[in-house]
Amino acid sequence: MTVALRIEAALEAVLTRAEDGHAPPRLAAAVRHAVFSGGARIRPQLCLAVAKACGGDNIPLADAAAVAVELLHCASLVHDDLPCFDDAATRRGKPSVHMAFGEPLAVLAGDAMIVMAFGALAQAGAQAPARLAPLLTTVCRGVGMPGGIVAGQAWESEPFTPVELYHQSKTGALFVAATMSGAVASGGDPHPWRRLGEKLGGAYQVADDLLDAVSGEVEAGKPTGRDAALQRPSLVAELGVKGAYARLGALVEEAVAAIPDCDGAKDLRDLVAMQATRLAPKHLARSAA
Amino acid sequence: MTVALRIEAALEAVLTRAEDGHAPPRLAAAVRHAVFSGGARIRPQLCLAVAKACGGDNIPLADAAAVAVELLHCASLVHDDLPCFDDAATRRGKPSVHMAFGEPLAVLAGDAMIVMAFGALAQAGAQAPARLAPLLTTVCRGVGMPGGIVAGQAWESEPFTPVELYHQSKTGALFVAATMSGAVASGGDPHPWRRLGEKLGGAYQVADDLLDAVSGEVEAGKPTGRDAALQRPSLVAELGVKGAYARLGALVEEAVAAIPDCDGAKDLRDLVAMQATRLAPKHLARSAA
Repeated sequence: MTVALRIEAALEAVLTRAEDGHAPPRLAAAVRHAVFSGGARIRPQLCLAVAKACGGDNIPLADAAAVAVELLHCASLVHDDLPCFDDAATRRGKPSVHMAFGEPLAVLAGDAMIVMAFGALAQAGAQAPARLAPLLTTVCRGVGMPGGIVAGQAWESEPFTPVELYHQSKTGALFVAATMSGAVASGGDPHPWRRLGEKLGGAYQVADDLLDAVSGEVEAGKPTGRDAALQRPSLVAELGVKGAYARLGALVEEAVAAIPDCDGAKDLRDLVAMQATRLAPKHLARSAA
Repeated sequence: MTVALRIEAALEAVLTRAEDGHAPPRLAAAVRHAVFSGGARIRPQLCLAVAKACGGDNIPLADAAAVAVELLHCASLVHDDLPCFDDAATRRGKPSVHMAFGEPLAVLAGDAMIVMAFGALAQAGAQAPARLAPLLTTVCRGVGMPGGIVAGQAWESEPFTPVELYHQSKTGALFVAATMSGAVASGGDPHPWRRLGEKLGGAYQVADDLLDAVSGEVEAGKPTGRDAALQRPSLVAELGVKGAYARLGALVEEAVAAIPDCDGAKDLRDLVAMQATRLAPKHLARSAA
């Protein structure tokens, strides 16, 4: 099975278990809408690649880590699209969850997906109890307070926003959770993998700011021009389009350089390079080629 | 230290750790507003009483279970008060979180509290790895899909609502998580404790429906008359006020009878009796006395 198929199968298994015959059908449908909507699965691929590079001796636990990180990412998108945040009617070219199912089910689907992420870790962790606590702690750090993606989003509600901490939390933290949890799932030392997550998270944030600033809604699959409209800190506002594009390239190079020496290093470099080509807005990538 | 003080101290420790110097200050304040707002702490008291009845050999893990259940309860209140659900301006006689901090921070505070609950379990579970997976699974079952409180709330968005499953999920599930997680934290068998949670959860649901139907906003500390206004299934609508009051009494008796034979049985009976007197709306309790 390819890694991509393995991720979809693992997500499907966790959702099926959570539905279990008597879940409210529209809630279950809202969760499916959020999870199976054509996402690139960048974070779970990264997680599994690191797990493999660290020996990959526990496939179910690595899958659970990958699923948890992806479910938490999808949950954050559902909540970020709500009217009180981005008020986005579309996501990946389809109606956002609150447009398709209403605001109450969008809030609840996000909540359910957060719980489901931890439930997946618990299920796989029962067979590897010594790894469960550090795995949970690693994932929690990427999502919650003080510096996870929830905190990152919350910086937008503060009178003063420290830009670097905002970006680190809003995007970087979950990439760091992806790399480090992959290592923990395989019984490896997670710390050498922090930097790769940070650099890729940084690259992804620049790419997202570029996409918002210079792409149309069709390419982005969601409303664009939101950073300027909502006066959010953006690296395009700070560096200009050319400057941001140069920063993106530098961050991808730094990400490649941050991959620790290991058996899987070549696969990881290939994955980072492949993701990098997907990151840049298409017409910018063409004009820079 | 009394149990009540122990719960407050454990909550304070978890919040302090989550703030850790660089959390967004308004998010941290919103979480504090939600957690320290005069809640009765019924669920964590129940959890700790069961943990003690099962031997109480791991105080930090029992505290973490109690804290997790209470944080998840508080998170559910914050999200349930949002304009798209109850649209409640007050909670426990104070402004609800979205009234005090705005809707974005109310969504994010709820999310952060869910993650914090699992983080607390991870932290204490590191010293008792064999209990961590079952503890997580027990707590997840009380909160997520298919039958936890998130699913319970989601039944309100379905065209057809199975009333018993709705009440079981919306209220009962977290009481069951409270009793069963207390047992798991002490290395006990959780299954004999399910029924106590179910019966107390049922009693609490009837009490809440009564409070909504017959009390004023001052006694309830939140807007009342919402079940009728929102056409939600309510036991008062089904049984009338007198019938609901009789059901409340029966459920409390059944809860007492459901307490398994154990060293702590007397303490638990006292706790249930004490909670029962708090449950009934005050003027009804007086007229029935």
